Amino acid sequence: MPFDYLRPLLQPSKSKIVLLVMDGLGGLPIEAEGGTELETASTPNMDLLASKGALGQTIPIQRGITPGSGPAHLALFGYDPLVYDIGRGALSASGVGIDVKKGDVAARGNFCTLDDQGDITDRRAGRISSEMALPLVERLNKIEIPGVLTEVRQVKEYRFTVVMSGEGLYPDLGDTDPQRTGVHPLPVIAETAEAERAASLFNQWVAEARVVLADQPQANALTLRGFATHPGLTTYEEAYGLRAACVAVYPMYRGVSRLVGMDVIEFEGDSPVDEFQALARVWDDYDFFFVHIKKTDSKGEDGDFTGKANVIESVDAALPAVLDLEPDVLIITGDHSTPARLRTHSWHPVPFLLWAPAAVIPDNQTKFGERACMAGGLGTFPALETMSLGLAHAGRLNKYGA
Amino acid sequence: MPFDYLRPLLQPSKSKIVLLVMDGLGGLPIEAEGGTELETASTPNMDLLASKGALGQTIPIQRGITPGSGPAHLALFGYDPLVYDIGRGALSASGVGIDVKKGDVAARGNFCTLDDQGDITDRRAGRISSEMALPLVERLNKIEIPGVLTEVRQVKEYRFTVVMSGEGLYPDLGDTDPQRTGVHPLPVIAETAEAERAASLFNQWVAEARVVLADQPQANALTLRGFATHPGLTTYEEAYGLRAACVAVYPMYRGVSRLVGMDVIEFEGDSPVDEFQALARVWDDYDFFFVHIKKTDSKGEDGDFTGKANVIESVDAALPAVLDLEPDVLIITGDHSTPARLRTHSWHPVPFLLWAPAAVIPDNQTKFGERACMAGGLGTFPALETMSLGLAHAGRLNKYGA
Repeated sequence: MPFDYLRPLLQPSKSKIVLLVMDGLGGLPIEAEGGTELETASTPNMDLLASKGALGQTIPIQRGITPGSGPAHLALFGYDPLVYDIGRGALSASGVGIDVKKGDVAARGNFCTLDDQGDITDRRAGRISSEMALPLVERLNKIEIPGVLTEVRQVKEYRFTVVMSGEGLYPDLGDTDPQRTGVHPLPVIAETAEAERAASLFNQWVAEARVVLADQPQANALTLRGFATHPGLTTYEEAYGLRAACVAVYPMYRGVSRLVGMDVIEFEGDSPVDEFQALARVWDDYDFFFVHIKKTDSKGEDGDFTGKANVIESVDAALPAVLDLEPDVLIITGDHSTPARLRTHSWHPVPFLLWAPAAVIPDNQTKFGERACMAGGLGTFPALETMSLGLAHAGRLNKYGA
Repeated sequence: MPFDYLRPLLQPSKSKIVLLVMDGLGGLPIEAEGGTELETASTPNMDLLASKGALGQTIPIQRGITPGSGPAHLALFGYDPLVYDIGRGALSASGVGIDVKKGDVAARGNFCTLDDQGDITDRRAGRISSEMALPLVERLNKIEIPGVLTEVRQVKEYRFTVVMSGEGLYPDLGDTDPQRTGVHPLPVIAETAEAERAASLFNQWVAEARVVLADQPQANALTLRGFATHPGLTTYEEAYGLRAACVAVYPMYRGVSRLVGMDVIEFEGDSPVDEFQALARVWDDYDFFFVHIKKTDSKGEDGDFTGKANVIESVDAALPAVLDLEPDVLIITGDHSTPARLRTHSWHPVPFLLWAPAAVIPDNQTKFGERACMAGGLGTFPALETMSLGLAHAGRLNKYGA
């Protein structure tokens, strides 16, 4: 459980906490004298919150460690990612709505293209469309392996998730994606003795898949990776006494939220305006709201500095809808940095803004940005302390010891 | 032991360290644009020290965690409060000078008033004076329970401490104070099987107390809480090679000091001037001096912003008496924050001033206050690192490794 000593300190409250995560928020200047994406964006609403609140910067895992999105979100949620190693398969399955149970083994899958030697020519099957992939997912769902049940769910385009349920399954299995072309997919290899049964069953399943996909010009095979079971995480309700809701577009983030017991809110659209409308709709039903903006990260990975700044501006422009709800605590941060200059996740500290009118001590910063956050009053701190900071400012924690 | 790796690094020195703790020092602005208590107070002496020294802010336990005074002081002393969970009973007993030994069980007690149904009508017995309570404490001291010894010592007004000594006693006992009126006091309930004997003996003792207090109009009963035994802490001498003295008015702080092996200095009066005179008197006999100012916290809990600022000013005015002693290291900080605005302890970081003429690197701060400390050169750091910082600046720590 995250921070065992927190639970006895919890006190009832009607206060509401919003954790607004712009994925990959942290950036880098393109030019030596220039600003970062966040510093360059025009963000009058966030700047006002920065003036009235306090800034800081978080270290997702440890200085120098670049986190994946799973560990980075676990840290923000208060679950030490070095302790809770959640397989991407479980995240992915949970994200597309499959109820991964203890003892199930989930994996992420890609359709791929093999030549007639059985060597991979395209690890993503020509990035076939979701429309083309869906009937193939249906074929996979018809595969029957004696002794176990399998469920396959499409994620997007060439990506899917498969979950196997049955007795004696363990997830210590190696990826079958060799991470390059010109070679065969790897077999599923058990990394522990107890995982031999699952390896054998998945290999049977992969062989059957080859048969049902054999007529396909592109998606004639598949690879599997990120084998995992349900991590059995303590829920937000158990850990923090919070009824928690997730407002997110992408399956992975919906998945990690579901794994910590958040209710995942369904809504139409994928803009910040749509997300904040969904937030408003369920406002009365929850205590804690995780709102996830994906496109900051996507633009960063595309190397699109201006595009990322524009996404930040669109969030800022929509922000009054959140403020109108009068949250007791509003935290605006990222899960990690994705500088457009690097076109990938990075290890840099993440800008953090805390606004909590009842109890925050304002620092001298007046603009939300990396350099202001470095000098912010909250200091530089582990992302893992985000939740205790939020709970405290929401009046939800009693004192520790007399 | 706090920081096992420190002990081999200790080197002999004649240097002297003063740790001046203004309880609950950290504050909050009352108005959005205003200063905190510390920022508002006129503190020319501390500001001069800030100019020549370095500032920072400490996190007592973890961001968002509001500490009680016991855990907060343990952290300042270098004992991780998440590891060393010291019952308030042991602190209190130690504070009033009872030598709590391993295997003893100590508890804090309150006189209370019961009606003729046995229901509590006043949990503090009308806050009877110390003069009224003292003869009642004497009556309690005459109670004899076969097989054990009990010692009762008055703390202040309606509060006392009781320590039971004997074979087979364990402190895993529930409080008898129901925390409300209109109900009976709770019996002493064992929370583990091994504590059954202590529960039974304390219940006998409480029953006898009811008999000897039966003629009292107000203090006709009592409640017990915070059952604890001696925590067996490593002493300052063992951990740091320091002969340490405590100059404090309030029993709790004297208690925690005694538990880490400090000598508690007796003196008359309760003002900063009185405390600093006591410090000067024993200056030659010790290496380390913990000086505790209580009233900053008391005024904070009263919601008295100006009163708290005035206490800070009185400490500042008296400070030259400390500087005249020419300490090698002077640390001025708090154990936690007690903003008058919140009228209670809080989780906010605590202002920290380090003055050490031989070795401090001055930052650019010129005034002792929360916002200056946020920007101070020492950064934001765990209170647990206070002692190693002090020892180093006092020339008492050799290098770690070759």
